[in-house]
Amino acid sequence: MSAQIPIAVRDRVSERAKQALDTVAKFVEEDCIPADAVFEAQIGTGEQRWNSHPAILEDLKKKARSLGLWNMFLPKGHYKESPGFTNLEYGLMAEWLGRSRVASEACNCAAPDTGNMEVLAKYGNEAQKAKWLKPLMEGEIRSAFLMTEPQVASSDARNIEMKIEKDGDYYVLNGQKWWSSGAGDPRCKVYIVMGKSDPNNADPYRQQSVIIVPADTPGITIHRMLSVYGFDDAPHGHGHITFKNVRVPAANLVLGEGRGFEIIQGRLGPGRIHHAMRTIGAAERALEWMLARINDPRKTPFGKQLREHGVILEWVARSRMEIDAARLIVLNAAIKMDEQD
Amino acid sequence: MSAQIPIAVRDRVSERAKQALDTVAKFVEEDCIPADAVFEAQIGTGEQRWNSHPAILEDLKKKARSLGLWNMFLPKGHYKESPGFTNLEYGLMAEWLGRSRVASEACNCAAPDTGNMEVLAKYGNEAQKAKWLKPLMEGEIRSAFLMTEPQVASSDARNIEMKIEKDGDYYVLNGQKWWSSGAGDPRCKVYIVMGKSDPNNADPYRQQSVIIVPADTPGITIHRMLSVYGFDDAPHGHGHITFKNVRVPAANLVLGEGRGFEIIQGRLGPGRIHHAMRTIGAAERALEWMLARINDPRKTPFGKQLREHGVILEWVARSRMEIDAARLIVLNAAIKMDEQD
Amino acid sequence: MSAQIPIAVRDRVSERAKQALDTVAKFVEEDCIPADAVFEAQIGTGEQRWNSHPAILEDLKKKARSLGLWNMFLPKGHYKESPGFTNLEYGLMAEWLGRSRVASEACNCAAPDTGNMEVLAKYGNEAQKAKWLKPLMEGEIRSAFLMTEPQVASSDARNIEMKIEKDGDYYVLNGQKWWSSGAGDPRCKVYIVMGKSDPNNADPYRQQSVIIVPADTPGITIHRMLSVYGFDDAPHGHGHITFKNVRVPAANLVLGEGRGFEIIQGRLGPGRIHHAMRTIGAAERALEWMLARINDPRKTPFGKQLREHGVILEWVARSRMEIDAARLIVLNAAIKMDEQD
Amino acid sequence: MSAQIPIAVRDRVSERAKQALDTVAKFVEEDCIPADAVFEAQIGTGEQRWNSHPAILEDLKKKARSLGLWNMFLPKGHYKESPGFTNLEYGLMAEWLGRSRVASEACNCAAPDTGNMEVLAKYGNEAQKAKWLKPLMEGEIRSAFLMTEPQVASSDARNIEMKIEKDGDYYVLNGQKWWSSGAGDPRCKVYIVMGKSDPNNADPYRQQSVIIVPADTPGITIHRMLSVYGFDDAPHGHGHITFKNVRVPAANLVLGEGRGFEIIQGRLGPGRIHHAMRTIGAAERALEWMLARINDPRKTPFGKQLREHGVILEWVARSRMEIDAARLIVLNAAIKMDEQD
Repeated sequence: MSAQIPIAVRDRVSERAKQALDTVAKFVEEDCIPADAVFEAQIGTGEQRWNSHPAILEDLKKKARSLGLWNMFLPKGHYKESPGFTNLEYGLMAEWLGRSRVASEACNCAAPDTGNMEVLAKYGNEAQKAKWLKPLMEGEIRSAFLMTEPQVASSDARNIEMKIEKDGDYYVLNGQKWWSSGAGDPRCKVYIVMGKSDPNNADPYRQQSVIIVPADTPGITIHRMLSVYGFDDAPHGHGHITFKNVRVPAANLVLGEGRGFEIIQGRLGPGRIHHAMRTIGAAERALEWMLARINDPRKTPFGKQLREHGVILEWVARSRMEIDAARLIVLNAAIKMDEQD
Repeated sequence: MSAQIPIAVRDRVSERAKQALDTVAKFVEEDCIPADAVFEAQIGTGEQRWNSHPAILEDLKKKARSLGLWNMFLPKGHYKESPGFTNLEYGLMAEWLGRSRVASEACNCAAPDTGNMEVLAKYGNEAQKAKWLKPLMEGEIRSAFLMTEPQVASSDARNIEMKIEKDGDYYVLNGQKWWSSGAGDPRCKVYIVMGKSDPNNADPYRQQSVIIVPADTPGITIHRMLSVYGFDDAPHGHGHITFKNVRVPAANLVLGEGRGFEIIQGRLGPGRIHHAMRTIGAAERALEWMLARINDPRKTPFGKQLREHGVILEWVARSRMEIDAARLIVLNAAIKMDEQD
Repeated sequence: MSAQIPIAVRDRVSERAKQALDTVAKFVEEDCIPADAVFEAQIGTGEQRWNSHPAILEDLKKKARSLGLWNMFLPKGHYKESPGFTNLEYGLMAEWLGRSRVASEACNCAAPDTGNMEVLAKYGNEAQKAKWLKPLMEGEIRSAFLMTEPQVASSDARNIEMKIEKDGDYYVLNGQKWWSSGAGDPRCKVYIVMGKSDPNNADPYRQQSVIIVPADTPGITIHRMLSVYGFDDAPHGHGHITFKNVRVPAANLVLGEGRGFEIIQGRLGPGRIHHAMRTIGAAERALEWMLARINDPRKTPFGKQLREHGVILEWVARSRMEIDAARLIVLNAAIKMDEQD
Repeated sequence: MSAQIPIAVRDRVSERAKQALDTVAKFVEEDCIPADAVFEAQIGTGEQRWNSHPAILEDLKKKARSLGLWNMFLPKGHYKESPGFTNLEYGLMAEWLGRSRVASEACNCAAPDTGNMEVLAKYGNEAQKAKWLKPLMEGEIRSAFLMTEPQVASSDARNIEMKIEKDGDYYVLNGQKWWSSGAGDPRCKVYIVMGKSDPNNADPYRQQSVIIVPADTPGITIHRMLSVYGFDDAPHGHGHITFKNVRVPAANLVLGEGRGFEIIQGRLGPGRIHHAMRTIGAAERALEWMLARINDPRKTPFGKQLREHGVILEWVARSRMEIDAARLIVLNAAIKMDEQD
């Protein structure tokens, strides 16, 4: 199994990354994709799917780790234990991870943990790293990211309203969040929460702070898991959560009051590359399915195989062009990010 | 509640149909749409959703019947008990039914029963009508339609392979079907099945027959319900079903051997109008939701309400144009069908 | 030659209009389309094309008139000499006129004369009608419409700046116009001009007036003819024109000061139907050309005729759908306009 | 003036090419774009435009040559006098050339001469190079490329029918061509012609030959210049040309009988990169014009500047994405070509 790299960026990928990429490709094709159906079955149906922790995932995590495929997402320089790949290099790997439902988590590269680990690695202090970053990087716990709110237009992050108020050695949180990704998983132990600590600051980009909230803190209520474009995403979960006088130690604040907007932007940048590349991997796999389908000799509508119908060949050609264009655009953006780091 | 009719076709709608249309509109808005959430809750989750028969639906059926809204789909002339609306007139009503998940069944106008009732009304003999059409028209039972097969390209109906072989006073069926709509409902008592009774006939449009198969006939196995574009559609169901030596009386054949293709084409014509108009109703409701959303005063991304963002107004305008164009195209086709009948 | 009418609107078309429509169709197919190439040749090239008055056009006008095809656009009720067709009926004729470059003018139904005649017929006084409407309706002269201006965003007609100032028994015009349609034709004798007579009126829709300006009034300078989407449209012409102290009798004002916006809106409504239907006719003819092309037995790329390539059949199908949808949308709008008149 | 290079490919561009690219950018912006209008005026209108040779072009050619911008298209290795740029490097330059109508010819990089020079440089013998390649590379003459034919589907080049028959020391050509690019220019002295020398060869890719035909050979008739998508392209010209017993020395054959398909494919490859990159340059310039337009403070439809209308900003964003994606796709293809050479 040897992964193809677009020729325009090939020389920018180190030999070490090329080898890791080939290992990822082989692991995804031979271990993860066959595990997808097992994973689905182990989740089950009905309410139990929110309490499941499919055993196959732990097997895959062990295998991934033994192959050296662990936390590849963490950019070099951000943390001492980073495997040291560039955004371009991990982007290429993320494409492969996107081909399988379980591959990202198997390599401890699943959102929102990746972004949350980046926040802690880049902006957290030593105590925060020891308590939360370490178990996340070990894959022992999972995390959720809480930014979006139901009552405001959260696509403009200046609008969020969750209150973060100082009260002695504590901060007290009041408000609500939804589409809180990761909140449904039974192993989710910690939330990275964005809110407003200084809502009247004249600078609208200095009103926000980011704070670490243990998932079991009193005052937190998870009301339901939302569907994603109408689809269920158990056991991951996008939660609707209310906070009522939720008290956390002041030491849980990340970087400092008023630094929230800056942290969130830093968090979202690499995430955009990761999501885009995983989606491209999913698109490649969809194209492979289409190719398999149109080559099925049993399917002969109107007297010829699907692959002999010109309209269908045009679908294939368009898909090929769109995927190739998207990949180059995203990888070019990844290189730009690498140069800015 | 007064339903709007495109001006171009208004004069073709009888006063009686206009009144019925207004009654449909009022019933959908005031009774059915509020019942949608109750229906969802009564279905439940997990396996039980395939055994549910939501009580709210029986309430709505009673109400619909008391309003005279029953079997409106059955074209005039096809059957003595038809309410006598044209395809144009019922098309306008179907648009309203499409706004609610429960409205079509509440008026006994839900697929695939509608098409199956048309087959029986138009092509069935008196015994077939007495036994199957009557309870279907009363809403006492439901039915499924079995045409598509997994192993062939069923979009070209000449390809289907289900065997229908004469054996004395019986026909014996062997083969498999999927996307068999309606097969999941616990009240589904009868299948309308298309298969091949004369696979070697030189005329590829004379090889097929349509036969009535009671759902409880030995040899039938339902393997699973398929999702529809990834969505669950319990309790309706699109089944994967195998037939192994399924014996039904020869009297169950509809119209005669070799008439299957003709029957199916006759069945699908009005169905295309119904599905299209229901979809247009759903699109109208989606547009209403979009309008409600963009007028929400709490949502102010980048300093202004959603309705003040030009890009979003363009979405509204395009949606308006697309829905209006689609409606006129479909209603024009309905009138053409009315004139051909 | 029998013109097809969409079934949904057929019953709204009078027998008289159906006969006229068939006459239009025959005239366009047998006389106008063959004349298109002659017309092009008679225009010539270089500067002379702006001084040409192709003889073929006068022949066609005589023929059209003898067939009773003259001024069909003028809505019933607007003027005593209107042939009395509805917007729907003329819309169907305009589709046929749109198939040929010369057909509209041959029937005295060419823009911008049509809109200008409507303005005079609907809003002009008797003296204005006698002097300008009469020769326009006889096809003896042509006219131009001057609204758009280079220095403002004219798509919002409130922005126009051409000054119309009272000076005793005269109005004096100063400013500039472009895309002034019809200004290139050597037979263009009169301009219908929109400008501002009361630029400081608190109501932005009462600042404008419409005034009749003879094309040979001193102070008018035509600078050049603009191309239309890069194409030359001689001898019709879209002119860039400046007005320097252009004096016209006060009696040339239409309807009254401050009525300009109202007049222009009244003028544009039917024009939108006419342009749209002519464009649909042009699209139908383009589709006919495509069909002729794909049936050319000499063109066999990759081993089969163009009509055997599925991708090309999809183009045909999409074209068919788009044209049919557009026609229904426009005709429905025409009926709406007929009911409002 | 410093040209921007997509970051993904930047490291593959030599310092020498980067300097040349900056020189091209400066030359196009400061000399060529201002010359475009002069060029248009010097062409004139009417028939004379086919006999024009705008003086401004010779001035620009002198300037380009003095800047070392000459024949940059000719790939390194193909010819001793090649400036030695890669396809990637020249592709980046071609983008700049595409911003101006005159820039490509000013640098002796205009189609179809570029492809014709490649044919001669790569496949021609020394005598052919001395006689035709040399004056082409010096910009002393121009050339045309004759492949497409009116009576067959030329998009499948196997279909062409022009006869090339051996007759002693001569080849005799009979047939017709159209869309023969470059044939209109008064300085066009030579045609590169593809035809069939062995129409019955069992291998459909060995039936063709390419031959050099002086433009003044007896038996050649140019019937007219075709428009391109309805636009005039004088003085370049896309001719409709017939060949009647056109005799050329056998020594004019390129590479050998039956090598025509191979030569043409080799010719078209780099041409696709060139055309695509020039088009991207034209698109960039169109986007600049759009930006200038939407920032015009005098244009304020509906109360705000064009740049404040969200719909228009979406056009800008989409244009930006489409151009960037296209550029990366084409440059990636250019690198692929460089590696294969």
